[in-house]
Amino acid sequence: DPKLKVFTCNANRQLAKEIAEHIGVPLGNAEAVRFSDGECQIKLNESVRGCDVFVIQPTCAPVNEHLMELLVMVDALKRASAKSINVVIPYYGYARQDRKARARDPITAKLVANLIETAGAHRVITMDLHATQIQGFFDIPVDHLLGVPILGKYFSEKGLQDIVVVSPDHGGVTRARKLAERLEAPIAIIDKRRPEPNVAEVMNIVGNIEGRTAIIIDDIIDTAGTITLAANALVEAGARDVYACCTHPVLSGPAIQRINDSKIRELVVTNTIPLSQDRIIDKIKVLSVAPIIGEAIIRVHEELSVSKLFD
Amino acid sequence: DPKLKVFTCNANRQLAKEIAEHIGVPLGNAEAVRFSDGECQIKLNESVRGCDVFVIQPTCAPVNEHLMELLVMVDALKRASAKSINVVIPYYGYARQDRKARARDPITAKLVANLIETAGAHRVITMDLHATQIQGFFDIPVDHLLGVPILGKYFSEKGLQDIVVVSPDHGGVTRARKLAERLEAPIAIIDKRRPEPNVAEVMNIVGNIEGRTAIIIDDIIDTAGTITLAANALVEAGARDVYACCTHPVLSGPAIQRINDSKIRELVVTNTIPLSQDRIIDKIKVLSVAPIIGEAIIRVHEELSVSKLFD
Ligand SMILES: Nc1ncnc2c1ncn2[C@@H]1O[C@H](COP(=O)(O)O)[C@@H](O)[C@H]1O
Ligand SMILES: Nc1ncnc2c1ncn2[C@@H]1O[C@H](COP(=O)(O)O)[C@@H](O)[C@H]1O
Repeated sequence: DPKLKVFTCNANRQLAKEIAEHIGVPLGNAEAVRFSDGECQIKLNESVRGCDVFVIQPTCAPVNEHLMELLVMVDALKRASAKSINVVIPYYGYARQDRKARARDPITAKLVANLIETAGAHRVITMDLHATQIQGFFDIPVDHLLGVPILGKYFSEKGLQDIVVVSPDHGGVTRARKLAERLEAPIAIIDKRRPEPNVAEVMNIVGNIEGRTAIIIDDIIDTAGTITLAANALVEAGARDVYACCTHPVLSGPAIQRINDSKIRELVVTNTIPLSQDRIIDKIKVLSVAPIIGEAIIRVHEELSVSKLFD
Repeated sequence: DPKLKVFTCNANRQLAKEIAEHIGVPLGNAEAVRFSDGECQIKLNESVRGCDVFVIQPTCAPVNEHLMELLVMVDALKRASAKSINVVIPYYGYARQDRKARARDPITAKLVANLIETAGAHRVITMDLHATQIQGFFDIPVDHLLGVPILGKYFSEKGLQDIVVVSPDHGGVTRARKLAERLEAPIAIIDKRRPEPNVAEVMNIVGNIEGRTAIIIDDIIDTAGTITLAANALVEAGARDVYACCTHPVLSGPAIQRINDSKIRELVVTNTIPLSQDRIIDKIKVLSVAPIIGEAIIRVHEELSVSKLFD
């Protein structure tokens, strides 16, 4: 059977270590460093000839650095005769540029898919894509993992009463439904409407939240504007308590300040994106995706060995 | 005839302006900005439908930011129905990663060529590639412009006497020959040898430099180690005076300090890479490549219109 090897670049070395530990292999000996002028250099310090290689690299900020590290790593693995190159992108950057929202917009999520294939990847493992359509941007297999089971397990074990799961917008209702099913709870939706142009948005809450413990769920929390406004609207409308959760804690710009200042009691996130020191606050609880990604890698590796896809 | 439009991102807006001026067209209305999380956003604020578009973007530092801006811009132009997309990359970043120098090295210069084609470029205009073989990494036409005529003209007009053109290493002899022909001067070569492992390199000078004004020429000056050591060796060996020149002033890390401290009287460079404020020193003279790039664009545009390559 081809050997399974796990490598990483710089985006989330801690997560890569946890995943390798879960699988029971050492993290591969490779480095992504920089030349004096900032060009990325990949040093692959061990053989990968004939191996099933998994490269763990979320394309979180600085996204262009991390994306380029990934592409150069795939190029190096390809030229070093890896048998299969499987890129594990727990957080897929540029996922929100997935359609022409305005005339002459690029579709960068599709461009990135093309770049990854061009570099030489054979398979992608990712989590909670902002739009599941992005799977179709690839012509190689995509394994799409979900954060809901991890978030759901945490909230189940917490033993909260009278839960209502809240989607902060129309787009997230399916995700809210999935969490609600696991918690055997009803759902509610925040329906933002602008009554007239240039008038502030009104937050209508669709569903019964009075006296209940609301859990707002989203895929990405970036500047935290949506989620903190939603939390405050829920409290004003009579929710007893508000939790929030997401898979991908981007938390850029004013996010930490807003979360601290908001009515959110606890924000539950995963470690697809590492939290820099300045973004670790008491209100944030981090759950690890290493076990589910580790399991996915084991299963993909078995499948590859069995089906001998690349023989 | 399809309309010629010139766009740029952020790598060298000043050069793009000069090129547009030379051609006699306004610089196209487009911006490369950043979302809060650092993702690149391209705003194409005018129609490009049916146009021959030229995007001017050297992939200088920060190389990954500038490369990604270029790729996303090409994606946007493609989806906005540009007739032809011509990328003008006066300085081609990653050109020194052009072969497997060590086992398991990536060949990033080739990867970058593939990425540019994948994004949707139809043609490349570039200058003084570190290795001319990189032209063959593309499957689309590459116009390869040279800096030697610009540098040669400057030194001719300076009226220096008893010139010898010096290549700082074996690899640059052809380039030195070209400049020497224009200046009707002989050449010399610096032949670095390490007599034994772990012993300092010895600089042998092949050719007659005594009492002469040496002009060292290279394609890229990065940390300026090679060129300043060469300059000092030339002075020690009896050169009367030392000038240096290159097309691409990368000038990273200790470069400015080294040049200031060296025996180099003047360093002549071009504006393929913009010099940040902290890299502008008295010893450095900058020549503009805008006229020759402008002419190349005009010629390519005429050719495209005549041959109707993309009709
Ligand atoms: N990195 C980003 N940060 C903020 N907004 C973005 C980003 N990328 C794309 N967008 C915008 O987000 C919108 C798409 O988000 P959504 O409607 O939630 O799918 C589009 O208007 C995009 O222009
Ligand atoms: N950005 C860079 N800065 C410094 N050295 C580099 C860079 N990119 C590639 N190299 C190295 O430069 C060498 C190639 O340069 P050359 O022999 O002049 O073609 C190889 O050993 C590369 O590993």
